Amino acid sequence: MFNLKKRLGIILSIALALALCVGFMGDSIATNNNHANNTYNGKAPKYVFLFIGDGMSFPQIASAEMYLGQKNGKEAISSEYLSFSKFPAAGTALTFDAESFIPDSASTATSLATGEKTLGGVINMDVTKQIEFTPITEKLKAQGKKIGIVTSVPITHATPACFYAKVPHRNMAYEIGLQLADSGFDYFAGGSFDQPTGKGKDQEHILDIVRSKGYNVVNTKEEILELNSKSGKTVAISPVLDGNAMTYEIDRKPDELALSDFVKKGIEVLHNKNGFFMMVESGKIDWAGHANDAAASIHDTIQFSKAIDEAIEFYNKYPNDTLIIVTGDHECGGMTIGFAGTGYETFFNKIDRVTMSQTEFNKIVKVFKENTTKDKAKLSDLFEDIKNAYGLIAPTDEDAQKEENKSMVLTAYEIKRLEDALKQTMRDVDNRIYTDQEKVMYGSYEPLSITLTHILNNKAGIDYTSFSHTGLPVPVYAIGVGHELFNGYYDNTDINKKIEAITKVK
Amino acid sequence: MFNLKKRLGIILSIALALALCVGFMGDSIATNNNHANNTYNGKAPKYVFLFIGDGMSFPQIASAEMYLGQKNGKEAISSEYLSFSKFPAAGTALTFDAESFIPDSASTATSLATGEKTLGGVINMDVTKQIEFTPITEKLKAQGKKIGIVTSVPITHATPACFYAKVPHRNMAYEIGLQLADSGFDYFAGGSFDQPTGKGKDQEHILDIVRSKGYNVVNTKEEILELNSKSGKTVAISPVLDGNAMTYEIDRKPDELALSDFVKKGIEVLHNKNGFFMMVESGKIDWAGHANDAAASIHDTIQFSKAIDEAIEFYNKYPNDTLIIVTGDHECGGMTIGFAGTGYETFFNKIDRVTMSQTEFNKIVKVFKENTTKDKAKLSDLFEDIKNAYGLIAPTDEDAQKEENKSMVLTAYEIKRLEDALKQTMRDVDNRIYTDQEKVMYGSYEPLSITLTHILNNKAGIDYTSFSHTGLPVPVYAIGVGHELFNGYYDNTDINKKIEAITKVK
Repeated sequence: MFNLKKRLGIILSIALALALCVGFMGDSIATNNNHANNTYNGKAPKYVFLFIGDGMSFPQIASAEMYLGQKNGKEAISSEYLSFSKFPAAGTALTFDAESFIPDSASTATSLATGEKTLGGVINMDVTKQIEFTPITEKLKAQGKKIGIVTSVPITHATPACFYAKVPHRNMAYEIGLQLADSGFDYFAGGSFDQPTGKGKDQEHILDIVRSKGYNVVNTKEEILELNSKSGKTVAISPVLDGNAMTYEIDRKPDELALSDFVKKGIEVLHNKNGFFMMVESGKIDWAGHANDAAASIHDTIQFSKAIDEAIEFYNKYPNDTLIIVTGDHECGGMTIGFAGTGYETFFNKIDRVTMSQTEFNKIVKVFKENTTKDKAKLSDLFEDIKNAYGLIAPTDEDAQKEENKSMVLTAYEIKRLEDALKQTMRDVDNRIYTDQEKVMYGSYEPLSITLTHILNNKAGIDYTSFSHTGLPVPVYAIGVGHELFNGYYDNTDINKKIEAITKVK
Repeated sequence: MFNLKKRLGIILSIALALALCVGFMGDSIATNNNHANNTYNGKAPKYVFLFIGDGMSFPQIASAEMYLGQKNGKEAISSEYLSFSKFPAAGTALTFDAESFIPDSASTATSLATGEKTLGGVINMDVTKQIEFTPITEKLKAQGKKIGIVTSVPITHATPACFYAKVPHRNMAYEIGLQLADSGFDYFAGGSFDQPTGKGKDQEHILDIVRSKGYNVVNTKEEILELNSKSGKTVAISPVLDGNAMTYEIDRKPDELALSDFVKKGIEVLHNKNGFFMMVESGKIDWAGHANDAAASIHDTIQFSKAIDEAIEFYNKYPNDTLIIVTGDHECGGMTIGFAGTGYETFFNKIDRVTMSQTEFNKIVKVFKENTTKDKAKLSDLFEDIKNAYGLIAPTDEDAQKEENKSMVLTAYEIKRLEDALKQTMRDVDNRIYTDQEKVMYGSYEPLSITLTHILNNKAGIDYTSFSHTGLPVPVYAIGVGHELFNGYYDNTDINKKIEAITKVK
């Protein structure tokens, strides 16, 4: 499958390169069928926020709104609108890239940052990987604006990278980090650097280079809370990381910094008379989508809304000079609010039973594996952990008798699925030979954990179809100067073109 | 599950009735959190079209656009915009009803026709089933406008019924038909009447009653093509029906009337100096969603777009007097453009291999069952039919060796799934005792047919999660007088409020 995709990619690259030679290309893919209104005659805003929910489309937003609506104890069914879904403009963008109806975050962020389509994996370069595109951040910097890039995942990840780097492939994290150091941009915050000493772990540490270029690098809560407009060029790394990403919101402890804190601080650092542009990515909505983790998705989407509240507070002070745009880059996981086993019913209250992300549960599984002889593993040894993490209750548990728990009790079929999954989980990854059915059931995830996630989702009336992105269009919301342009149904490259038109960059 | 829903429904009814008594209700559910702009100061349009794609949301539209984009032989990936997705206004509506985040067509069409939320199954009455709501069609009729109701499913079905009837439950088709006869509305077209002689089959034939109320009832192609502005009050029933619905577009023969023909004729019948309102439902997008039939969904969505082309042609003649709105009432099936087994790839060209709807294939299965001894049924006896209907090829077929067919060859796992399904299919419906897994795999569908549909979908990179509706929001597109009001992200009741504001009904 991957080979076929690669082959197709090569064929397409050649076809597109040829088309380019005969002058057929350029805008023609991006503007194919284009009917979007990208013309703007008003004044440009001084302050522009672009919020990108990675892997966030209608299902991720609607599920969070339904969860909040039901959580807030309304008698009748009701949705609670998130901060951004009340914006006066709302449109929809198609997300396909130059090679696939199901794009990745590199090609889509390239479209958002430059208005161009490219191949999956490519950061701000064309389909031949020869020609560099100029991201809007460079153009706005040339206008004298300060530039901020905030993300909950590594700062060198595909989406943030497209706002300051140009490389043929997203996996070149060290190179991306070097370009960050050379960008001259003003505020980088959230996650840390992937490949900090290069792929071969033999390069100068990226943070030393970043510092040598004049950046103030901070990674304690105290330092971060002290940031202000006098801090100068800043790299603010979350003191609490899981890998190089911030933790899922569902795993974050109350006293730890949230994405909203990095936005709040960003506004303080960037605020100046020439204006600023801040791109904020909520990257783990996507990771939750890949892992089909509805609870983590919902909590990260709500935190994303809170981060946007910080921008709304700023907008309320400077309504005539501010534009806020909120969008997703693509859907992830094929999330649906509906499952064959629950029909017309949903049970969002069951999401409240979940106390940790699948990633956190994987740590419990890891310890269990280390302490258990392979063929002695019993599901029942994990029942207490399963109850604590997912609220799913074994029929043998005395809590299973309580009325409020009845719908959380594992059925015989669910126990069977978990036992099958545990067998695979107890094997080393290399020894897991999957049937076609198991491939679709487990993907590349820990079989026991993903099965628990699926069972919990399904009990709540939610289901997923994929461990990858999907081709669902994404919503675009806007408020402030020029917001009207974001109404309509258009291509994701148009989002960039609208921002460029409104900010009058050259 | 159904009992639980019923019980919940009763509890909710009581709760809501109580709330009504203390004056807490009324608009409060519908306008909870409401931020939609429903104010209009311009002039009212003379001609209003409301197109409702039943079960049509973003996935149904995007999949049709991707299918067309790839079908039209483009080298690069591209979507082909449908007629309505190029409209200047595009918004999004939430679809939950008074009892569920996953609504049915009765409650949602009540919201569209009256601006009120109600329970599933209820046609234009409140949650107590005591108070009648007035649909916008009555208000527009009072303005002197002619009224047309067109649908590809039975004319007494929930969606069309909400534009002329008021009954406590959608299953009261005969009563709905009686209210049609008494409506005084001008043009009913497409599907026929359910329960034409009542539930007990002991009532006067509904068509005799309809005729006695002054309606010209026509059901031949010749008669229908002769309809014009002098035809008077008309009921035009498709000469080709499957049950009381029009056939799926994929099953329609080229010389048979399509939904677009009934819209075209409707414009001729309704056009008059006082203006008209026409509601057009494409009802089988929903039925295709329930059956997870991606090919049928795509073809019916494309035909829906062609039907809308008729209104666009009219709009182009009277742009200053016309408003066209296109929306869905809810999503159906949990369709996603992406499947765990195909990752980031889609193969829309495989949809072209499908030559008939699942409903048509069921007829082949029925004949096979009648001619085969239960325990002698062999899947291989159906291989030729399967190839003809779905393009899926048995590994033993000599066509399996051809390069262009390789990806259509059934795998061992798929053959196993089909053999399991055939065993259940050969049983009488009452003798099919399903495991939890089979319930989710087959729903209430013919096990062999639904399994073939699922295999074909998955090979194309498409998947579904449910046989019911889902909670995904729906798009709203508009062009013409007052179209700007349809931008934004709002409740489905707001769609009605916007139309009422624009048409200035009382």
